[in-house]
Amino acid sequence: MVIDNFITVILSVIKTGLGLCDETDITVKGLEAIKSCERVYLEAYTSILMVPKEQLEKFYGKELIIADREMVESQSDEILLNANSLNIAFLVVGDPFGATTHTDLVIRARELNIPVTVIHNASIINAIGTCGLQLYNFGQTISIPFFTNTWKPDSFYDRIKENKDLGLHTLCLLAIQQLFEIEETRNQKVYTTESLAIGIARLGSSTDQQIKVGTLNQLLSQDFGPPLHSLVIVGSRVHILEIDFMRFFAVDKQLYNEIVKKDYGI
Amino acid sequence: MVIDNFITVILSVIKTGLGLCDETDITVKGLEAIKSCERVYLEAYTSILMVPKEQLEKFYGKELIIADREMVESQSDEILLNANSLNIAFLVVGDPFGATTHTDLVIRARELNIPVTVIHNASIINAIGTCGLQLYNFGQTISIPFFTNTWKPDSFYDRIKENKDLGLHTLCLLAIQQLFEIEETRNQKVYTTESLAIGIARLGSSTDQQIKVGTLNQLLSQDFGPPLHSLVIVGSRVHILEIDFMRFFAVDKQLYNEIVKKDYGI
Repeated sequence: MVIDNFITVILSVIKTGLGLCDETDITVKGLEAIKSCERVYLEAYTSILMVPKEQLEKFYGKELIIADREMVESQSDEILLNANSLNIAFLVVGDPFGATTHTDLVIRARELNIPVTVIHNASIINAIGTCGLQLYNFGQTISIPFFTNTWKPDSFYDRIKENKDLGLHTLCLLAIQQLFEIEETRNQKVYTTESLAIGIARLGSSTDQQIKVGTLNQLLSQDFGPPLHSLVIVGSRVHILEIDFMRFFAVDKQLYNEIVKKDYGI
Repeated sequence: MVIDNFITVILSVIKTGLGLCDETDITVKGLEAIKSCERVYLEAYTSILMVPKEQLEKFYGKELIIADREMVESQSDEILLNANSLNIAFLVVGDPFGATTHTDLVIRARELNIPVTVIHNASIINAIGTCGLQLYNFGQTISIPFFTNTWKPDSFYDRIKENKDLGLHTLCLLAIQQLFEIEETRNQKVYTTESLAIGIARLGSSTDQQIKVGTLNQLLSQDFGPPLHSLVIVGSRVHILEIDFMRFFAVDKQLYNEIVKKDYGI
């Protein structure tokens, strides 16, 4: 990075498509780092950008090279080319280590003795606290890609059950229809249409964020607009302040109060 | 916020003392927001700042008002004074909704019809991915204050056990000595001196971050320097890439390989 005048790959979380939204969500440190770089890659396949690439380029004053899955997974040496004499940035939407996707690239850089600096930023994993639930009361986060006709992975169902059995909240990075589809198949009532949940769209957008609290059924009929969407299934281990906070976002406050009384005894 | 010319309390996560480190860790959006504010409070009791207040003030071009626990919990109306006609910022080190501490303030603001905007940033909860473990494999995060002679809360022990039984990693925001002290009392072998763990100090600092992997016993004898420290107890549900990534940080690579083979069969 600039500071140490090193030979560095910067893995900079510039913003989270699953949360924060526009070009000003980058940190001052991240922006300085980008400006110091010879090449700047933008990883654009594990998440969705909420602003056009050109808008970022204008703000950063740098051209961005789109890195698709093929490039990251098969041509990492091209990304790392000359990174032991130049600064190279790799911008990730969301957490750079949320899953294994980018881990390989860092391991490869280390094998080549290229110093790696990570510049952190917010992601849905911590920004979800905005919905009023305490981060300490969350269990495992689950994330699955969209189903195809022949491929409907359902291991997330077991993860939700594990969290539920402990009374913990589950952050679900998936579509609500996928939940219903798998509950129908597995049928263990890990959640039902009457389970209390929070629907979130475009988290972190100052103009366009939506947070709605209600039963899964209620949320299904709400219009959340364009992506990105996520969902929290509320666990049984809730604090009274969490209940109070969520009320603000309730789709129907009277029904919310009834559910809270019936399911949570509050 | 500036954009909507509103009457707004900005709950801005400017940086995480439990992770990110200096004044440039603020987002561009957060910096713009601070500059638009009439009063800027700095919450300084739930976490520790890693730079002097004066350094932040110089960078932000604003005087900071220190908000201690007494002020936040008992004098919230003073903080919110005139917030329906002026922009007021409340800067939090770490997640603004990590625990209940700041939730009250937001609820109070809403009761007074004061719009609240949250400007997110990184925190230990997501930045912990830097150690090489996947965020999806973490269970509940645990956090406890320092023990006193008469007050040694041990409920975190049950939380670690719950995570362990599911094979999940646990992020522990506490001192390693506290772990040993409670294991001695509870004695259920939820972890032992031979458990694989990751010690982290000053996460996010570009010059001073430390990440070390080893048994709890090995980590205890390492000098991690000044705070802030945190710890991850590695769960049994590990991916081969997590093992590869952690090796880079191993205190003793040979011993690490032996542990990994013995405990994880990898």
